[in-house]
Amino acid sequence: MRYAATSPGKRVRPVLTLATAEMFGATGDAVLDLACGIELVHACSLVLDDLPAMDDARLRRGRRTTHLEFGEDVAILAAFALLNRGYALVAEASRRLPLSRYHAEDLLHHLAAAIGSEGLIGGQALDLRGSAKALSLAELEAIHSRKTGALFVAAAELGAMSGDARRKELEAIGSFAKNLGLAFQIEDDLVDATATSEQSGKDAQQDRGKATFVALLGIDGARALADELLTFAEASLAPFGRRADGLKAIGELVRDYGRLGGPGAAASREPS
Amino acid sequence: MRYAATSPGKRVRPVLTLATAEMFGATGDAVLDLACGIELVHACSLVLDDLPAMDDARLRRGRRTTHLEFGEDVAILAAFALLNRGYALVAEASRRLPLSRYHAEDLLHHLAAAIGSEGLIGGQALDLRGSAKALSLAELEAIHSRKTGALFVAAAELGAMSGDARRKELEAIGSFAKNLGLAFQIEDDLVDATATSEQSGKDAQQDRGKATFVALLGIDGARALADELLTFAEASLAPFGRRADGLKAIGELVRDYGRLGGPGAAASREPS
Repeated sequence: MRYAATSPGKRVRPVLTLATAEMFGATGDAVLDLACGIELVHACSLVLDDLPAMDDARLRRGRRTTHLEFGEDVAILAAFALLNRGYALVAEASRRLPLSRYHAEDLLHHLAAAIGSEGLIGGQALDLRGSAKALSLAELEAIHSRKTGALFVAAAELGAMSGDARRKELEAIGSFAKNLGLAFQIEDDLVDATATSEQSGKDAQQDRGKATFVALLGIDGARALADELLTFAEASLAPFGRRADGLKAIGELVRDYGRLGGPGAAASREPS
Repeated sequence: MRYAATSPGKRVRPVLTLATAEMFGATGDAVLDLACGIELVHACSLVLDDLPAMDDARLRRGRRTTHLEFGEDVAILAAFALLNRGYALVAEASRRLPLSRYHAEDLLHHLAAAIGSEGLIGGQALDLRGSAKALSLAELEAIHSRKTGALFVAAAELGAMSGDARRKELEAIGSFAKNLGLAFQIEDDLVDATATSEQSGKDAQQDRGKATFVALLGIDGARALADELLTFAEASLAPFGRRADGLKAIGELVRDYGRLGGPGAAASREPS
């Protein structure tokens, strides 16, 4: 669990939670726990994605994948324990937050929706089934708005809910996060297509033959789509003015991510 | 998910939730959802236990295991989704219950504790690591009080909490469920050791060479231990008098389970 959860990642989802919470005036340990809960759910999904029965990956975040390091049985149990701990953290944190507009169960409901068959798990199932055939852009977007987008949305919405954002504000934040998540996935495809394993921290071969945004649109086309999505994302933040500067900065980081050839390409060798 | 969750099982855990809830005056749809949430978590654990990387089982509840029927990738995702849905059900149900002594988060906390490293997942991890060596009775009990006992305890405690049981009452119910769970595991070992695959609905060969209560104590010794645990369990119910008749009846069912050679051995061919 520790190996998978503390491997060097970008932590973009928990940062999204923290930035959104701050935007609505929520800070402190409970918000940090919410963000950690989201990251544990993400860590769980990475362990599962990498399993021999799934992508059969050898490298993740520049390290051997969890199942190679500890065995497949332990990796599967660790993944489930990470999901469990993620839920527990969100439940505990929700109780400590001084919520007035939402109940703790609302936060859990959003988390469950992001993980379930309309979220992460559904996206991964579609991805497994879709990898054998040629996908349209709409199909690829449908997969990744679940597989990546849903947890981005939950990350941002949980942050907003912790600050008692209004329903209308929550919708705008959700729309931002959905487009941000899809753009992030495209940037990730760009990194996989253009960077070495050392730069990306992942198997360079792993996505060969798999439907990706780059395979479908080419590098320039994928880059253009990511830009478009990020512009859409930023537009959702218009009603918030300067309050949304933190979220806009995350949008810029995502925009730069694919261009820099992945996190490992930076001179500082910052972890991915 | 449906295949794994609706396969013919004994439903002893959700029945335990319902009986305990009723004992404390809680009934209705929300209690039923709590019970279903517990059963989904259990279904998740069965899919995982049966995976090639774990017990590599072919038969469960008289059917092909989920990974044989749908592939290992789908089985892993289904298990993950069952856990998620279990959490979602418990969270939703907790909100609808007219709780006065507990918060919804208390119920989720008990559920998370039953699943995590001190519960189901920890027990399975110990079981995997322990299967290669000779275990003492204390070690075997430590494994199964987590692997089986913890979810029995949560099943009963969630039922009791839904009826606003006092802390002291909750402890007694927890003690009953812990001993009941361990006795149930021993009865299960007895069925595996004495029944055919058709009777037990499981691979007869699967536990060969594995540490079980029967391997350690023999059939008579295991039966005596199960009886002793059930007597302990029933003793925890003394303060409740006739109110605990439902729980006592569940104890009797568990006592009979191993003796009848498993559920498939009954003339009625009742599902296991």
